[in-house]
Amino acid sequence: MLNNVTLIRKKRDGEALTAHEIRHLIQEFTADRLPDYQMSALMMACFLNGLNPAETEAFTREMLHSGEVLNLADIPGIKVDKHSTGGVGDKLSLVLAPIVAAAGVPVPMISGRGLGHTGGTLDKLASIPGFQVDVSLDRYREILQRQNLVLVGQTEEIAPADKRLYALRDVTATVECIPLIAASIMSKKLAEGIDALVLDVKTGSGAFMKNTEDAKTLAKTLVNIGESFGKQTIAYITRMDEPLGRTIGNWLEVEESIDCLRGEGPEDVMEITHLLAGTMIYLGGKAANVQEGEDVSRQMVRSGKAFQKWVDIVREQGGDTSFVENPERMPAASFSLEVKSGDLADGAGASVLDVEHRISKRPELEGRAGKQMQDMFIRSMDGYSLGMASLELGAGRKAKEDTIDPLAGIRLHKKVGDSVRPGETVLTLYASAADADKMFRNALSWLRKGMELGRTPTSTQPNILMRIDRKGISTDFRGS
Amino acid sequence: MLNNVTLIRKKRDGEALTAHEIRHLIQEFTADRLPDYQMSALMMACFLNGLNPAETEAFTREMLHSGEVLNLADIPGIKVDKHSTGGVGDKLSLVLAPIVAAAGVPVPMISGRGLGHTGGTLDKLASIPGFQVDVSLDRYREILQRQNLVLVGQTEEIAPADKRLYALRDVTATVECIPLIAASIMSKKLAEGIDALVLDVKTGSGAFMKNTEDAKTLAKTLVNIGESFGKQTIAYITRMDEPLGRTIGNWLEVEESIDCLRGEGPEDVMEITHLLAGTMIYLGGKAANVQEGEDVSRQMVRSGKAFQKWVDIVREQGGDTSFVENPERMPAASFSLEVKSGDLADGAGASVLDVEHRISKRPELEGRAGKQMQDMFIRSMDGYSLGMASLELGAGRKAKEDTIDPLAGIRLHKKVGDSVRPGETVLTLYASAADADKMFRNALSWLRKGMELGRTPTSTQPNILMRIDRKGISTDFRGS
Repeated sequence: MLNNVTLIRKKRDGEALTAHEIRHLIQEFTADRLPDYQMSALMMACFLNGLNPAETEAFTREMLHSGEVLNLADIPGIKVDKHSTGGVGDKLSLVLAPIVAAAGVPVPMISGRGLGHTGGTLDKLASIPGFQVDVSLDRYREILQRQNLVLVGQTEEIAPADKRLYALRDVTATVECIPLIAASIMSKKLAEGIDALVLDVKTGSGAFMKNTEDAKTLAKTLVNIGESFGKQTIAYITRMDEPLGRTIGNWLEVEESIDCLRGEGPEDVMEITHLLAGTMIYLGGKAANVQEGEDVSRQMVRSGKAFQKWVDIVREQGGDTSFVENPERMPAASFSLEVKSGDLADGAGASVLDVEHRISKRPELEGRAGKQMQDMFIRSMDGYSLGMASLELGAGRKAKEDTIDPLAGIRLHKKVGDSVRPGETVLTLYASAADADKMFRNALSWLRKGMELGRTPTSTQPNILMRIDRKGISTDFRGS
Repeated sequence: MLNNVTLIRKKRDGEALTAHEIRHLIQEFTADRLPDYQMSALMMACFLNGLNPAETEAFTREMLHSGEVLNLADIPGIKVDKHSTGGVGDKLSLVLAPIVAAAGVPVPMISGRGLGHTGGTLDKLASIPGFQVDVSLDRYREILQRQNLVLVGQTEEIAPADKRLYALRDVTATVECIPLIAASIMSKKLAEGIDALVLDVKTGSGAFMKNTEDAKTLAKTLVNIGESFGKQTIAYITRMDEPLGRTIGNWLEVEESIDCLRGEGPEDVMEITHLLAGTMIYLGGKAANVQEGEDVSRQMVRSGKAFQKWVDIVREQGGDTSFVENPERMPAASFSLEVKSGDLADGAGASVLDVEHRISKRPELEGRAGKQMQDMFIRSMDGYSLGMASLELGAGRKAKEDTIDPLAGIRLHKKVGDSVRPGETVLTLYASAADADKMFRNALSWLRKGMELGRTPTSTQPNILMRIDRKGISTDFRGS
């Protein structure tokens, strides 16, 4: 008979728990026989003493089997999904899912909601009028079979132990533990019924993993888990220092995704999209290698097939296709503020808001414009600060129960490396709430902290840093 | 505004918490605004990352001030108490408290109940028919004033946060953390209203601190806390490899204490008793140094004053003095078993009980006697195993809610270094419950594990290892 306190002590003393012991712990937790106070002590011991690959796999397995595990074996094709660890302005799922499905690879995608400074794919989908993200498991299979694609939210039936454990970790400072993060991600992904998985592990100021070493460790852990469950898993580490693309915010990002699917997407978004989509197409057996997969991906966009798939899936899931076919039909947020370079260049030390305000419709805010007499360059745009700014505008959730304004967010007219003329607009902020003026003030204080302008440009960094798969790490993987 | 999760994260990341932050955490915990699951995560982080002296002092202070702190300033004299970290057969409190009180030093002693393999002074006192260990705080002062001595149990009013925190640590594998152990001990002792404190930190197999390094660390921590609260504090590290004295069990130990107070105590008990009592008498201002205090202590025993004080305090607290004046009046346990050297010498590997049983009154157990043809020596008597054996006999509590048999226990006819003739009795076991035969079997299996007999004697070890006070550590402290 296993004793809970003895098992906590074992982990506390740096020993590894067996698969049998981890099964006992998660099953007792799920059955309410292991109280939260014991689990949180265990989580802290796991956090500080680490988990080895076998323990990490066991945690994943037990959380996976705490709920429904979908079996999609009767649906033809190699089912492939992509997971991102979350970034600011990361609308890649919305773009690559229709591309890959159009290429003939079934994509069963279950997404989460956003929390904190990063957005969630689910919230972006929910900004499309009528789009249903909550469907039954039967309907999930039906949509996937009809469209080669399904885009839904996590249901209560998927990995309930993970849900409960994550909520507990969130309030006991035990979230940032790489093996537990990996087990949480993979228990949900493995429940989808996928055959293969592509992972986009973000690193940088706008990502959960602030440094590349942690991102590498997480990527390796995720790949190990995937492979140990017999799913081919390829991870890329991509940069998330500045936001991806030119928009942050739910509907703003849907709009930008439509541009991408129509062949008018920004370069940074399309580079990563084609790599991830190409890898999915390769894993799905529709290309001989990733490079060929990327070619197929580009072709899906050029031919209009990807966009058509997007319209089809929006219609299938109850969305109003007129908004995705003509995004300009969507009303704008109630208030907007154009932010000029002078508004940002005053230095982060200023405690009083002294920018020049030009809030459309409601110009209550007053201030002084910063002086800018010559061209400047955007030297950095801190992803975290821009994510927090968009959160302040109502585009995200500070707490789980917060509601989201689908129209709120930030449009980036400039990106890192761009030059800015005196008086030129760098960003436009959007908000709809009655206290939009306060929101703008709060957002601006983040933006002033997070953006650096200077007289000289900076050298740009590559967006894609390395690839990690069961063979190891490679930085020169093109053509493989 | 302090945030609980932020503070847990801070400790998790190895940073020190401020006194202000620790106050917040304990106050929130006491007010039920910091849930158990957050506190247990914090305790695990404290366990694994440690606490510095300032943090330890702050934890002590906040637990102390979570309840009543007695002020005995209006009672004349320097109030001195002694605390032991707990050992097997440790009846020192019962002997030294009357000695010190008889010497004119007020001793306000609040004791705990036993749990696990070590006994508690409170349970020993409670084995005296009629003795009241639960008294009001007013009555506590009155007894102390009348007798220079009071022997009671911890009330609900004393350090309630410590009580709740200890219960939580007990079920989350976070007990064995030296700074938290020290804070727990000192918060209760400081609440007594003492002016000075003598500590007996046990080390060895029968103690909570199995090795001397841990005992030293604990002793230093306890002394630091005491001194930081302005209480003169002297700690001794004493050996607890074999049980102290010749009895283990509540009434058995009271009986032996009476022998000690009548000048017929075993040498090991009296050596440590006189040292601790002498130190208390010195701290209480009734001797110029510890050595002189020891002389006073011996004189209190020789003159009969210590025994008279014992009779007085038993009467004062409602006990039936006829039992302490004539201990033979107390009925014996219902069943007893004499354990011969041959019963123990068969080796620890035997899984079937094959000793010769001679249970008085109920000789159901049958077996074969081990063969012993020549004199043997007791080479070791593991304190932990003997403590566990007495627990099996009903003398202690496995769980907090267990009741104790005051008459159960073990009498040691031999101690380490003694020779044993063939057929001679080494121990007598006592039990009263209906399933005494099962109890004896369980106890014997511990005894066979814990006792080593051999053809040659072992060298004996000193009982008192070192002294620790604000000046540091000394191993040659006699005459200081």
